Amino acid sequence: MKEKIADMLVNNIGKYVSGEALSSRLHISRTAVWKHIRELRRKGYLIQAAPRKGYCLTQRPDLLLPEEIKRYLNTTSVGKKIECWRTIDSTNRRAKELASQGALQGTVVVSREQTVGRGRVKNKWFSPAGGIWFSVILTPQIIPQKASLFNLLASLAVVNGIQKVSAVPLQIKWPNDIYLGKRKLAGILTEISAEMDQVNSIVVGVGINAKVDSSSFPDEIKKTAASLWEETEEELFLPEILGEILNQLELLYQRSEKEGFEGILEEWRGYDLLKGRDISIDTPSGRVSGKAAGVNSRGALLLESEEENIEAVLAGTVIF
Amino acid sequence: MKEKIADMLVNNIGKYVSGEALSSRLHISRTAVWKHIRELRRKGYLIQAAPRKGYCLTQRPDLLLPEEIKRYLNTTSVGKKIECWRTIDSTNRRAKELASQGALQGTVVVSREQTVGRGRVKNKWFSPAGGIWFSVILTPQIIPQKASLFNLLASLAVVNGIQKVSAVPLQIKWPNDIYLGKRKLAGILTEISAEMDQVNSIVVGVGINAKVDSSSFPDEIKKTAASLWEETEEELFLPEILGEILNQLELLYQRSEKEGFEGILEEWRGYDLLKGRDISIDTPSGRVSGKAAGVNSRGALLLESEEENIEAVLAGTVIF
Repeated sequence: MKEKIADMLVNNIGKYVSGEALSSRLHISRTAVWKHIRELRRKGYLIQAAPRKGYCLTQRPDLLLPEEIKRYLNTTSVGKKIECWRTIDSTNRRAKELASQGALQGTVVVSREQTVGRGRVKNKWFSPAGGIWFSVILTPQIIPQKASLFNLLASLAVVNGIQKVSAVPLQIKWPNDIYLGKRKLAGILTEISAEMDQVNSIVVGVGINAKVDSSSFPDEIKKTAASLWEETEEELFLPEILGEILNQLELLYQRSEKEGFEGILEEWRGYDLLKGRDISIDTPSGRVSGKAAGVNSRGALLLESEEENIEAVLAGTVIF
Repeated sequence: MKEKIADMLVNNIGKYVSGEALSSRLHISRTAVWKHIRELRRKGYLIQAAPRKGYCLTQRPDLLLPEEIKRYLNTTSVGKKIECWRTIDSTNRRAKELASQGALQGTVVVSREQTVGRGRVKNKWFSPAGGIWFSVILTPQIIPQKASLFNLLASLAVVNGIQKVSAVPLQIKWPNDIYLGKRKLAGILTEISAEMDQVNSIVVGVGINAKVDSSSFPDEIKKTAASLWEETEEELFLPEILGEILNQLELLYQRSEKEGFEGILEEWRGYDLLKGRDISIDTPSGRVSGKAAGVNSRGALLLESEEENIEAVLAGTVIF
C-alpha cells in the first residue's frame, strides 16, 4: 500500500495529491493514508503535507530503496531481488554470504553506507552516505580463469550506466578503476567462489562517489578522488544511476553469453586510460615496467618493453 | 583432565591401569576418575573396566577427535585447530564459512559422516561413518590462476599420507582422484575464494573410503569405488591416516613456498594414472580426445593428438 501511495506521488512530482483522492483510489481511510505517509517519510521520502491541499513530493525520491531502484530497471534477472541496508559492514561480504546460501543470479545488495568498505587487496574504501555501494551476484558457467573478464565487463557497465545520466568524460584504469579526468570516481572489487573447473559465483562489488561531499574525503584520497555531483551539472538521483548500471550490466552479461567477450573488450579499449603511457605494475612476482599497450583477449594488460617485447600481465596494481 | 586419562591409557595399550594410579597421579578422587572414564566412553573410547584391575584400552583409539589426530601430527600450522563433527552437511561448506570469518591457515574441519557430501561439479559424494571426510583451509599469497596447482599438491599429500600407513599401490587420475588399482579410493574437491589479484582462501576437501564397508556403496559406485581396509593387511587407524596426510600437506605446502611447484609436479608425475592412455576430457567448451602426456608446469593435463599436437587442458572431467 505504501508503495502505491509513493507511486501516485511520484507520478505527480511537484503537485499536491489530496488525502481524499488517495483514500478513495486505494480504498483506505484518511487516517490510514496519513499513517502510510508517515512511514514513507521515515524511509526518507520528502513528502510535504498542507491542509486542504494534501501531499506533495517536491522532487523525485533520491533513495536507494528497492522500489525506487526498480523504477529505472528494465532487466530480467539483475536487480529482480534487491536487498537494501541503511548501514552494513560490506556489501561484498553480505553478497558472498547470500551466494553461499544459493542466492539467484542477479541478486543485488546495496547500502547507504558501509562501515568496513573494502577496495582491492584489502585496501579500505571510504563509503559514506551519498555514495552508491552495491554488490551483484553473477553465476556464469565458466572456468575460474575467465573470471577476470567479468571484472572488465563490470567496469564497462559502470561507465555506460553513469553516462546514461551524465555526460562526464570517463576512462577506465586497468583493470577496473573508473576515472573522471585525473581522479578516481569509482572502484570495483570482484570476488569469486570457485571449484577448479567452474565458478560457483562471482560477486561484483562497486563503489561510486556519486554524491559524496569531496570535503569529507579522508586526506589520503583528497587529491586523487572525484565526486560525480561536483563535476556535472545534471541533476543526479542515486537510484537512477544504480538502475542504469544494473541495466548495462545485464545487457553486457547477456552479450557475453551470446557473442563472447571480444566485442565487450573492444568497447572497453575505447575507455583505456593507460594506453600508450609508461607505467609500472606491482605484480605478485615483482614490479614490471613498460608502455601500456591495451588488453588482450583474456583481459590481461599488455606491457611493451623498450625492446618491443610484449608481456601480458594478468594481475597487479598499476602505478602511472 | 579427560585427555590426561586418555593419554595414560593410550600409553598403556592392552594393559590395565588402576583407578588408584589414575586418581593419585592426577590428584582427583576415584569417583572423578570414573566420571571421566564414562565421558571418554561416550566419545567412543573402548575402555574396559575390571574390578581390582582398573581400566584398559584394548587397542589404539580409532576416533576422529582433535586429541587423537594430534597424536600423529608434527606440523606447525596445519591441524593446529581442528573442528570435529559427528555429522555435518559438508566439511567444505563449513570450512568456507570459517574461512570467510577469517579462520587461520591450516584450520581443519573433519566429520565422522557427511549428509550432503559433494564431489566435483556438484556431484554427490557418499560419506558414511568409517571414511575420512575433512577440509583444510589454506591462505597462500597467490593469484587465482595458480590455485589449481594446490589441487595437485593436495592429491600428492593424500597419496604420501596414506602410504605412510599402508603399502597399497596408489595412482592419481588427473587432476586429483586417488586410485587403488582400477577403483577410486579418494577424491578431492578444492574450492577457492579470491579477488582478481589474489586468493583469499583455498579450501581443500578430501574424502577417503578408509574403512567404509564396500557392501554399503551405492549401486552407482559399487564397481568403481575402493575401500582401503579391504585392500590392505595393515591395521588402520583413522586419526593416524588423517594425521599423516596433514603432515604431508604441510610439508608440501612449505616446499612449494620455498622452491615453487616444479619438484612437487615431478613427484606427482610418478603417480600419473593416465599417462600414455587414450582418453577424452569433457571440458567446459566441449569434448577433446587424445593421448594423455603428463601435466605441464601450470598443472594442466597435456593431450597429444594424432598429429602430435599438444594441447594443455586446464579443467574438465576425464573419461578413460
